[in-house]
Amino acid sequence: MTVAYRQDSKTRQLRQLLAGEQIVRAVGAHDAMTARLVEAAGFEAVWASSLELSASHAVPDAGLLTMTQYLDAAENMDAAIALPVIADCDTGFGGPLNVEHLVHRYERRGIAAVCIEDKVFPKMNSFAAVAHPLLPVPEFVDKIAAGKAAQRDPDFMLLARTEAFIADLSLAEALDRGYAYAAAGADAVLVHSRLQRPDQVLEFAAQWQGDVPLVAIPTTYHGVHEAELRAAGYRLVIYANQVIRAQVNAVSSMLSRLAAEGRAGSVDGQLVPISELFRLQGMTAAFRANP
Amino acid sequence: MTVAYRQDSKTRQLRQLLAGEQIVRAVGAHDAMTARLVEAAGFEAVWASSLELSASHAVPDAGLLTMTQYLDAAENMDAAIALPVIADCDTGFGGPLNVEHLVHRYERRGIAAVCIEDKVFPKMNSFAAVAHPLLPVPEFVDKIAAGKAAQRDPDFMLLARTEAFIADLSLAEALDRGYAYAAAGADAVLVHSRLQRPDQVLEFAAQWQGDVPLVAIPTTYHGVHEAELRAAGYRLVIYANQVIRAQVNAVSSMLSRLAAEGRAGSVDGQLVPISELFRLQGMTAAFRANP
Amino acid sequence: MTVAYRQDSKTRQLRQLLAGEQIVRAVGAHDAMTARLVEAAGFEAVWASSLELSASHAVPDAGLLTMTQYLDAAENMDAAIALPVIADCDTGFGGPLNVEHLVHRYERRGIAAVCIEDKVFPKMNSFAAVAHPLLPVPEFVDKIAAGKAAQRDPDFMLLARTEAFIADLSLAEALDRGYAYAAAGADAVLVHSRLQRPDQVLEFAAQWQGDVPLVAIPTTYHGVHEAELRAAGYRLVIYANQVIRAQVNAVSSMLSRLAAEGRAGSVDGQLVPISELFRLQGMTAAFRANP
Amino acid sequence: MTVAYRQDSKTRQLRQLLAGEQIVRAVGAHDAMTARLVEAAGFEAVWASSLELSASHAVPDAGLLTMTQYLDAAENMDAAIALPVIADCDTGFGGPLNVEHLVHRYERRGIAAVCIEDKVFPKMNSFAAVAHPLLPVPEFVDKIAAGKAAQRDPDFMLLARTEAFIADLSLAEALDRGYAYAAAGADAVLVHSRLQRPDQVLEFAAQWQGDVPLVAIPTTYHGVHEAELRAAGYRLVIYANQVIRAQVNAVSSMLSRLAAEGRAGSVDGQLVPISELFRLQGMTAAFRANP
Repeated sequence: MTVAYRQDSKTRQLRQLLAGEQIVRAVGAHDAMTARLVEAAGFEAVWASSLELSASHAVPDAGLLTMTQYLDAAENMDAAIALPVIADCDTGFGGPLNVEHLVHRYERRGIAAVCIEDKVFPKMNSFAAVAHPLLPVPEFVDKIAAGKAAQRDPDFMLLARTEAFIADLSLAEALDRGYAYAAAGADAVLVHSRLQRPDQVLEFAAQWQGDVPLVAIPTTYHGVHEAELRAAGYRLVIYANQVIRAQVNAVSSMLSRLAAEGRAGSVDGQLVPISELFRLQGMTAAFRANP
Repeated sequence: MTVAYRQDSKTRQLRQLLAGEQIVRAVGAHDAMTARLVEAAGFEAVWASSLELSASHAVPDAGLLTMTQYLDAAENMDAAIALPVIADCDTGFGGPLNVEHLVHRYERRGIAAVCIEDKVFPKMNSFAAVAHPLLPVPEFVDKIAAGKAAQRDPDFMLLARTEAFIADLSLAEALDRGYAYAAAGADAVLVHSRLQRPDQVLEFAAQWQGDVPLVAIPTTYHGVHEAELRAAGYRLVIYANQVIRAQVNAVSSMLSRLAAEGRAGSVDGQLVPISELFRLQGMTAAFRANP
Repeated sequence: MTVAYRQDSKTRQLRQLLAGEQIVRAVGAHDAMTARLVEAAGFEAVWASSLELSASHAVPDAGLLTMTQYLDAAENMDAAIALPVIADCDTGFGGPLNVEHLVHRYERRGIAAVCIEDKVFPKMNSFAAVAHPLLPVPEFVDKIAAGKAAQRDPDFMLLARTEAFIADLSLAEALDRGYAYAAAGADAVLVHSRLQRPDQVLEFAAQWQGDVPLVAIPTTYHGVHEAELRAAGYRLVIYANQVIRAQVNAVSSMLSRLAAEGRAGSVDGQLVPISELFRLQGMTAAFRANP
Repeated sequence: MTVAYRQDSKTRQLRQLLAGEQIVRAVGAHDAMTARLVEAAGFEAVWASSLELSASHAVPDAGLLTMTQYLDAAENMDAAIALPVIADCDTGFGGPLNVEHLVHRYERRGIAAVCIEDKVFPKMNSFAAVAHPLLPVPEFVDKIAAGKAAQRDPDFMLLARTEAFIADLSLAEALDRGYAYAAAGADAVLVHSRLQRPDQVLEFAAQWQGDVPLVAIPTTYHGVHEAELRAAGYRLVIYANQVIRAQVNAVSSMLSRLAAEGRAGSVDGQLVPISELFRLQGMTAAFRANP
C-alpha cells in the first residue's frame, strides 16, 4: 500500500527543525493556553511536560496521572498551536505493549514526538531526593523497539531519555545507554542531569559518536546558554518547567494582595486585561459566528 | 429510608459559610494547582470558572467545552483542597434534563454547589460585545426545578445567575427574575453586571426582599470593596478570572525574556524554586512512599 | 501551502465506497468490540450511534452525553478497525461554533465523517413519542457551512440529516431541506422516517434531483431490502441500533438463567469461549510482547 | 472532627451483604447498561471487570487501559444502579502511591470496593498462556496498607486477590499470601484459579483460618455451584466475564444473518424492541421532562 503523508504535518515540521543549523528550543507547557503563549513568544516547539502536568493537577510527579490524561492534555495543546508538540511520556506507562499502545494513540492525535525514559515504572521526578533505579538496558531497548515498530508515519519520532546521570552512573554507562537506544531506533537521545553545572551533559556530547540528535534540559544547570549547548552538539534544548513556576509565583503574589486588599482593582497591575485573554482564546472568531 | 450525610461534607461547609456574618470570598480557578493556591491565600471557596477553564483550553468561552470536561476539572480542584468548590455550569448544558443530569454527576463527585445562568444555550461570555439573549423565565425556572429535584444531599446548592443586566434589561426585570428563581428553589441569586461601577448590583440589593443569599462578580466594577458589597447585602463575592489573567501576564513576560536571553537562569527571579513546586504538589508524601 | 493527504485515509476510503456501484452498509456500534464485530461480519462502515452510545451509558438518548464522550467512543472504534467510522453527532452539540469545533476534533482523531441533524438542541430520539421541533433552515445551513469551512482534509464528509418526516412535515418541505443542506455543502443527505413502511424515503428519493448521496436508516420500516433502497437511489444504509438490541436480548436471557441455576456452566452454550474473546481483543499480540 | 457517613451508602450496603448468610453474587459488567441488566436479573453486586472492559475496548487485558478509563467506567455503572460496584483494579496501576491515589479517586466516585491483585505490573490476564510473575509479599503488603490508609469511609473495602495458583505456587504459599494480605488490612481475599475443577479454591477454603471473607471467580471451574462455594466458606462469587461473552456470541450471530439477508427485519427475533431499550435507558423520564 502506497502511503503519502501530509507534507504539512507536525512530524515533518519537527524533523526539519532538528535537521537545521539552529538549536531547537522547546518550552514545557501543560495546557492549551500555556502552549499558545510558548508559540507567541517565538519558540519552535512545545514540551508537554510531565512535571508541569502533574503539578497543575496538584499530584506528585510520580506516575499518578494516566496515559489518557497525558494524551488529552497533549492533544489540547497541539490543537491550539502551529508548533509541534513533544510529549513527555515518563517511562512509557509500563512495558513494551504499553509503549506500542501509546505510540498508536499519540500518533493518531497528531503529536509529533514522544519521549520515554529508562527509569523503572512508576517513576519519581528526577529532581526528587530519592533513589532512581533504572531499567536494565535490554528491557528499555525492547520498549523503544516496540514503540518504533508501532508508528505508521515515518516522520513520527521517539526520543529516548537516559537517567543514567540521575542514577549516579558513569559517563561510560550513560554513553552505552545512548548508543543502545539509538541502535534500537530512538530518533534522539535526551541526556538528563541534575548538577548545578552542565559538566555531565557537555562531557557526554564531547564523547558522543552517534548519529541521532542530542537533547538537554537545563533546569539545575541553568547558567548554560543555548549557544554553548549547540556548540557542544545539542540540537534540542527543553525549558521544561519554567512556565508553571512562573505561574505559581505570579498567582501566589496576586492572591496575597487580593486577600489583603479586598478589592479586585488592587491587583489590576498584575493582570492582562480581559480583552487580551479573549484575544488569546479566540473569542473574535466566536463573535463572528454568534454576533 | 433514613439518610445521614457526612457532617464534614463540603456542601455543609459552604452552607455554614454563607450563614455566617462575614462575606464569603470565592476565587476563580481552572485546575487543581490554582485551586490550591486560592486555598493557600486564605480564601473560603473556589469558583470553577467557565472563563478560566475555556481560556486554559484556548477555546472561546462560548459553550464549547463539555459538561464532562467541566466536571473532571471541578473534581480535580475539589480533590486538591479542603475548600468547597462552586462549579460554574454556564447555562446548564441544555434543558431541564441536562440540569438534572449535571446535578447527579456533580453531587456524586463531591462538588458543593453548581451555578447555572439564564442565557440561551450555547452562551457567549458576558463581557463579549455581542447580543445576550435570555431564556424566558418559565423555561429557566424549569431548569432550576429540575436541578433541585435531582439532588440527594439537602445541603447541595444550586445558584441561579441572572444575566438580566448583561442583556440590558431593567432593574425591575432583574428583580422579577431573581424572585422567580428563588421561588423555584435556587439557593442563591447571582446578579451579573458589566458596568464599570457597581451601581446595578447595589441597586438590585437595595430592592431585594428575597430570602436567599445574593452573589456578585466584581470584574468590571473592580473598584468596589468587599465590605461595600457585604453592607449592601451580598453574601458571596467571586473573583472570577484574576488567576488566569495573572498567569498569562507572568508567563508572557517570562517567556519573552527567556527567548531573548537564551539562558534558563535569566528568568530565575520570576519563578518559584522547584522545591516550592514540589511542596505544592505533595511530593513529600510521595518521597515517603517511594524512598 | 501544498498539502498531500494520506492515500490510505479513512476519509478517502469512505468517499470511494460511496462512489461505487454497491450500496454501502454501515452498522451502528458503541464501543471498539462491537465495531470490530461489524467489521468481522463484512460490512463496509461503522456508525458511531448516538442511540447505542446513550443506551450503553443507560441514559436517555436526549443530548446528555457530551461531545467529548462521543468523540472518545468514536476514536476507540476507529482505532480498532480498518473500516471508516461515521459519527452520529446529534444536532452538533449547539450552534455553528460547536459544529466548527467538533469538525476540528473529529477530523483530528481520524473519523471519516460526521452527521448532524436539523432538530433543536437538546434533541430527543426520533422514535420517542414527543414533539420534534426542527431548527429553521437558515440556522441549520449556518451549522453545515461552519462545519464544512472547518475541515482541512477535502475528503472529510459532513452528512446532514433531516428530521422533516419525524416532525410530520411534507415531502416538499423535506426536499427543500435536503436541497438547502446540499447547497450549504453537505456531502450527503440522510432522510429519516419512523413509518412502518419505507414510503417516505422511497418518495423522497423518487423526487430527489440533487447530486449528493442519499442515506437511509431502516429501523421501523425494517422490511425493506437493501436492493430496494439502492434501486431507489440510496447509497448508504445504516443499521443503527440492532447491535445493542441484540446484546440486551442475549444478556438478559443469559443472566436470567445464570441467576436461576447458580452455576456458570449452565450458560456455556450462550457464550463464546474465552479464547475467542482473547482473539478478538488481540491477546495474541500481547503474548508475543510479554511471553 | 466527628464524621457521620450516609447510612444508605453503597459501602455499607456491600458490608451488610457480606455479613449475611447468603453467598453474594457479583456479575462482571463493563458499562452502565450491562450493569443495569445485572441488577435487573436479581444479582447483588456488579464487578467492574478488567477483562470485560479491555475486551469492550478491543485491547488486550494487559494493563493498557488507564486508571481514569477504569474509574469513569465504574462510575457510569454505579450511577445507573442501586447495587454496589466492586472495581477490578488489576495490580493497582503501579506501586503504593498509585494505590493510595486510586482509593482516593474511587471512594470519591461512590464505588463500594476495589480489588487489587499480586501480579507484577503491567499484568497479563490470568487465563493467558504466559508466565505470571508475582510481586514479593512485602511489596504487595505495602500496596494494601497504602490503600487502606487512604480511605476515609470506614466501610469502603479493599479486596486483595492472590494469583498464587495462577503462578503455580503451592497451597501453602497461597495461604501465606492470604494471611499476609488480611494482616495488612485487606477486607477480603480473592483466590484465583484456572483449573477446570474447583479443587484449588476448595482446598484453600478448607485450610483457611482467617477472619476476612473469601472470594471466588468460577470461570474455568464452571461446574461448581454457588452452594458448594458457600458451603466451603466463600462469601462472594464473581461471574466475571459471562456478559461480554454472551454479547459477542449474540452480536456475531445477528450480524452474520443481517449481512446475508440484507434486510433489518430478518434479525428481529434476535433483538429486544426499541421500546424495551428505551425503558432500560430511562427514556420515560426524559419524555416527562421534554414532552
